[in-house]
Amino acid sequence: MSVTAAQGFVASGVVAGLKSSGGKDLALVRNLGPSFAAAAVFTSNRAKANPILWSQQAISDGVVEAIILNSGGANCFTGSFGFQTTHQTAEAVAAGLDLAAGDVLVCSTGLIGVGGDDFRAGILDNVPAAIAGLSTEGGEDASLAIMTTDSIPKRSIVGGDGWTIGGMAKGAGMLAPGLATMLVVITTDALVGSGELDEALRAATRVTFDRLDSDGCMSTNDQVTLMASGASGVTPDLAVFTEKLTALCADLARQLQDDAEGASHSIAIEVIHAANEEDAVEVGRSVARNNLFKAAVFGNDPNWGRVLAAVGTTQAEFDPYGIEVSINGVRVCKDGEPDEPSESVDLTPREVHVLIDLKVADAAATILTNDLTHDYVHENSAYSS
Amino acid sequence: MSVTAAQGFVASGVVAGLKSSGGKDLALVRNLGPSFAAAAVFTSNRAKANPILWSQQAISDGVVEAIILNSGGANCFTGSFGFQTTHQTAEAVAAGLDLAAGDVLVCSTGLIGVGGDDFRAGILDNVPAAIAGLSTEGGEDASLAIMTTDSIPKRSIVGGDGWTIGGMAKGAGMLAPGLATMLVVITTDALVGSGELDEALRAATRVTFDRLDSDGCMSTNDQVTLMASGASGVTPDLAVFTEKLTALCADLARQLQDDAEGASHSIAIEVIHAANEEDAVEVGRSVARNNLFKAAVFGNDPNWGRVLAAVGTTQAEFDPYGIEVSINGVRVCKDGEPDEPSESVDLTPREVHVLIDLKVADAAATILTNDLTHDYVHENSAYSS
Repeated sequence: MSVTAAQGFVASGVVAGLKSSGGKDLALVRNLGPSFAAAAVFTSNRAKANPILWSQQAISDGVVEAIILNSGGANCFTGSFGFQTTHQTAEAVAAGLDLAAGDVLVCSTGLIGVGGDDFRAGILDNVPAAIAGLSTEGGEDASLAIMTTDSIPKRSIVGGDGWTIGGMAKGAGMLAPGLATMLVVITTDALVGSGELDEALRAATRVTFDRLDSDGCMSTNDQVTLMASGASGVTPDLAVFTEKLTALCADLARQLQDDAEGASHSIAIEVIHAANEEDAVEVGRSVARNNLFKAAVFGNDPNWGRVLAAVGTTQAEFDPYGIEVSINGVRVCKDGEPDEPSESVDLTPREVHVLIDLKVADAAATILTNDLTHDYVHENSAYSS
Repeated sequence: MSVTAAQGFVASGVVAGLKSSGGKDLALVRNLGPSFAAAAVFTSNRAKANPILWSQQAISDGVVEAIILNSGGANCFTGSFGFQTTHQTAEAVAAGLDLAAGDVLVCSTGLIGVGGDDFRAGILDNVPAAIAGLSTEGGEDASLAIMTTDSIPKRSIVGGDGWTIGGMAKGAGMLAPGLATMLVVITTDALVGSGELDEALRAATRVTFDRLDSDGCMSTNDQVTLMASGASGVTPDLAVFTEKLTALCADLARQLQDDAEGASHSIAIEVIHAANEEDAVEVGRSVARNNLFKAAVFGNDPNWGRVLAAVGTTQAEFDPYGIEVSINGVRVCKDGEPDEPSESVDLTPREVHVLIDLKVADAAATILTNDLTHDYVHENSAYSS
């Protein structure tokens, strides 16, 4: 169900011939109203894909009636031809649905540099099929059509008191922070204005998608879009809405982590007793990006020295003679010295918990990442060949 | 010859039982004078190993008479016992050579957390052998004794007008910037004061070791030490000395890159027409740390989109519609669009040249890195097991 779980939304997913696999690769989600409020967060990468440039403009009035997404090509660094393709895509959707093109968002994902004639034709030729396929049962097809190297679709639903939030996501590679980090579409039938949606979405992504750092590589195309139809007629308390939205984003982020390219471990790096939240995030992210540590986890080796070496590269406040590190419940470092033997740590489960106690103050944060594996190297060396 | 190429130096390398391989693991280099000027740069990692803490103090007066280095244990996060071991090591060398302990530097490399009783005994028991072995032919043994996962020793010699500079280095893993990035000892018989040595060494490392970024992981133990005996009696022009020293450091850095753990490509990322040197370095380093790009090079895939995605994460000035990227001489991206077909790029040679033209101004810099390979993952997942 995902994006069609909430009232007032229809969706579809069709084959446009963009993916070499021949699978579904064009998704459309339409808001039937009565309200068309929306908010989105975009990649902070300064090399932005054409659909990002388009969507940032299109959503500036807080109104979105439809969003079209393709896999099989990023339409990034494809020049003015690529931007025209995005524009024509929005125009085609708008014409078919009798909307204004400025109320249609566009998302693309796939290889950078792909966005030529075949790409344009594949999308434009199949917009009519995507429109024809729109239905309240279309959430599943849409979630399949946005997949790239994802092995499974990611969907989530949370319910409020008389209203619902549903979402879909694709991830797999290039997962790193900077607001949005993947393609995500979230729909709700709650009656919420675009300003409140924006506030809630930024609050939710800050502690979910922004703290997922699978491989440190920030994409050029990533976008998280939240659309509200108001079809339930219910306006929830904003704090409650934000809490539910955050839970849904956390669930989708976790699904992305669990399906990250080639990963054999899902690692949660929890940093506690930091001077402030920024310090905790900086420390967690530094460990999450340390290739030596990530390779060690792949080898089921609780190499805590690599955790500490990564902590040392940050500007965060910590006491080298007080710091503690526990891995899967075993405190391997205490007071900056070896404590329990590393042999006591069991790293065979998929889930890994690294607890870093900075012993400074009371702030905390958790960063989610993955290990560095042979499969990661393999998938990313063969991706475009 | 390495550290014994210059007049006034003797060295040795002996087996202390620290390395499980049973190979040489304790090196000693002594300056016989008449001058004992020295300079060093240290890791900027805030988690510093005990030998770093010791050596930073010991060199503060600009005088060094000997340096002892061990592989087989980093003596980092080993508490006050570990610091005492470093202190006792310096004392033992000083006693054996009739020097002050404060004129003896100590370096360690190996696993973090290793520095217990066996480690201390191995070093202290074998200092006498290291002293007994000192000779003008000992440079080779010393360069062997500092190796960890290095497959070959790294040595270099450059000659001036009546004076010589020689050096040895070890690297292999955890190669990333922040001043020093590995263990390096450089000796010269030029007659140069410690202030000038410091100036020359900082100038040389800034554009050599500091621009080698194999895997983005900064070590806790790294140190580059330069010792001058004055035995040639010649005081070179400082600019000439700095130029020769830079050439020697560049040669050693290149040797480290060529022997980085598991690497199958040596990649030079040259950034040109940047607004300033900092921008060029930031862009080069961002590409050098992008796992997706590094995995693509391993697969001989000239995936320039990943280069641009990495450029986009920086704060550097660039024109997304003007930027050019060439890989091994083939311009695959021009004006921010695909140019020559990627198929024209031959990535089978070990050496890879990535040229990024930011089209802004006239600054430039080159960062050296390696690809991300199955062997890198393997070596670093099995390192301590």
